[in-house]
Amino acid sequence: MGVVVPLEDRTGEAGLAPLLALAAPGMERVNAFILSRTGSDVAMIPEVANHLISSGGKRLRPMLTLATAALTGYSGDADVRLAAAVEFMHTATLLHDDVVDGSEMRRGKLAARMLWGNEASVLVGDFLLGQAFKMMVEVGSLEALRILAEAAAVIAEGEVMQLSAAKNTTTTEDDYLAVVRAKTAELFAAACEVGPVIAGRPKAEQAAARSYGMNLGVAFQLVDDALDYGGREAKLGKKVGDDFREGKITLPVVLAYRRGTPDERAFWKRTLEDGQVEDGDLEEAIRLMGKHGAIEDTLARARHYGAIARDALGLFQDKPDVKALLDVVGFVTARAH
Amino acid sequence: MGVVVPLEDRTGEAGLAPLLALAAPGMERVNAFILSRTGSDVAMIPEVANHLISSGGKRLRPMLTLATAALTGYSGDADVRLAAAVEFMHTATLLHDDVVDGSEMRRGKLAARMLWGNEASVLVGDFLLGQAFKMMVEVGSLEALRILAEAAAVIAEGEVMQLSAAKNTTTTEDDYLAVVRAKTAELFAAACEVGPVIAGRPKAEQAAARSYGMNLGVAFQLVDDALDYGGREAKLGKKVGDDFREGKITLPVVLAYRRGTPDERAFWKRTLEDGQVEDGDLEEAIRLMGKHGAIEDTLARARHYGAIARDALGLFQDKPDVKALLDVVGFVTARAH
Repeated sequence: MGVVVPLEDRTGEAGLAPLLALAAPGMERVNAFILSRTGSDVAMIPEVANHLISSGGKRLRPMLTLATAALTGYSGDADVRLAAAVEFMHTATLLHDDVVDGSEMRRGKLAARMLWGNEASVLVGDFLLGQAFKMMVEVGSLEALRILAEAAAVIAEGEVMQLSAAKNTTTTEDDYLAVVRAKTAELFAAACEVGPVIAGRPKAEQAAARSYGMNLGVAFQLVDDALDYGGREAKLGKKVGDDFREGKITLPVVLAYRRGTPDERAFWKRTLEDGQVEDGDLEEAIRLMGKHGAIEDTLARARHYGAIARDALGLFQDKPDVKALLDVVGFVTARAH
Repeated sequence: MGVVVPLEDRTGEAGLAPLLALAAPGMERVNAFILSRTGSDVAMIPEVANHLISSGGKRLRPMLTLATAALTGYSGDADVRLAAAVEFMHTATLLHDDVVDGSEMRRGKLAARMLWGNEASVLVGDFLLGQAFKMMVEVGSLEALRILAEAAAVIAEGEVMQLSAAKNTTTTEDDYLAVVRAKTAELFAAACEVGPVIAGRPKAEQAAARSYGMNLGVAFQLVDDALDYGGREAKLGKKVGDDFREGKITLPVVLAYRRGTPDERAFWKRTLEDGQVEDGDLEEAIRLMGKHGAIEDTLARARHYGAIARDALGLFQDKPDVKALLDVVGFVTARAH
């Protein structure tokens, strides 16, 4: 009856510790900088922004920027601004996502849209995006700007792709991966790529950091998709089954649908395409995923991308800081098995 | 019974002709560039974007960028990219505005949100904003980037300000002007400022162009506010009284409220703060504005800002191209009297 996903796995927690230690001094400055840039005379802006920003996200993306900058020998302070910009881009995306998905919860708290409305969530997201670009301009690296501006366009493109595919149970795994790369992994990739860029390192190192971030991001999203059908609510910060209720076609669904009988496919079409969800349907969805190994195999796919991410760091194998980044892969995939 | 605003005024149309002529060669390239950058493998993106982009907006803002670049002697092709970026920022703002305001019409067509939904409007807006920043990065001027990134943040801040003030009939004229400067005039100001910036002209010329754009933008918005209570539907591209139905506090309301009797103030509170609008209320609102001269005086205020915009161009009085920019002021204010 479904796959139990023990989120308490200690390996996961330990896996993030080296990154936390590496990034700690920089993150203190990133956090102070973030707070200083949500300020506005318009009271609603810091209220909405800080509700989400202070809600205990892991800040994985800005830590990755600091870590890849450190890894490649950067010693200035542009990494702090770029890390803060990355977190602002992420926060803006979350505000807009929750509006688009009609989500009620985010990180275990009411979504901003439930407290201040969709209107404020859209506009404060826009404000944060504007602030993010201001920070990048302050850094003055046109190459970092190019990477992050490209990421902003690609992320939005991925979200629209997902919206278009949302109700289509026949989405292929490849289609779905294209969405994941764009809407989630692109920001991980950009966050990692700008580190060696500001360090002035060669293209090969920039590409390696980008590849690490891209594959880590895909693994991260796939584990998230699996957790939505098997995680525990308190740790997940949202309700189990949110993706199901919102009719999102994620990899566990893609696999269960393709491996399913005609009756089962009718079930997926009724619940996800037609949105006719009845009591017990979530349990049935989880049962079907168990029957077909859809969650285990989603996690196996995540480990595959995690392995690519690790190998991408091969160029840096003689650097002591590389261990922290390798361990992040363990953290991301150990969240779930 | 209300002020008749004859939109067919020939002075207005003639007023834009010199700018149209000055900007024509550049605008052909801007339009081609805009089309090339709404492309995406995700079919919904060009559909939504082109619905609005091809809907016959005047493209005043990108023309202003071309014109201020020409005025200050610029001869490269960065102005085309920046002009396209300005138009994308504007389009993104309109897509998000219509979601925030729940608007049904835009430029005489159904708003994108009525055809593709709020979700697509939010996300395609984000995509266009990302594309706008990519274009700016391609230009490579950090100063132009700084100005436009700042504008993006200020515009969003102004929209939140308006959201916070939306239902407050006691908004002062100063409060309202702060909203107008941020949400409308800032983009006019930035569009004009980047012209002399890429031309490498001194700060004094940049500031003059910015001041022209800022005051022109304020005049533009105030005339728009007046037209909403007195324009004719076909020319306005939206319904007369949209602002009233959406409970927007604009300058005609601020003036009519401040000059009104206690009974009249109760009327404004009922209709705009409490949203209890009945048949005949729009006509009553227009009658009260007529009684207190609120529309004429909104237009008088607009002419005041128009005069400041004209004087800001004093630095350029010996330049032949300046006439086109002076005539824009006439066009903007003659739309309405």
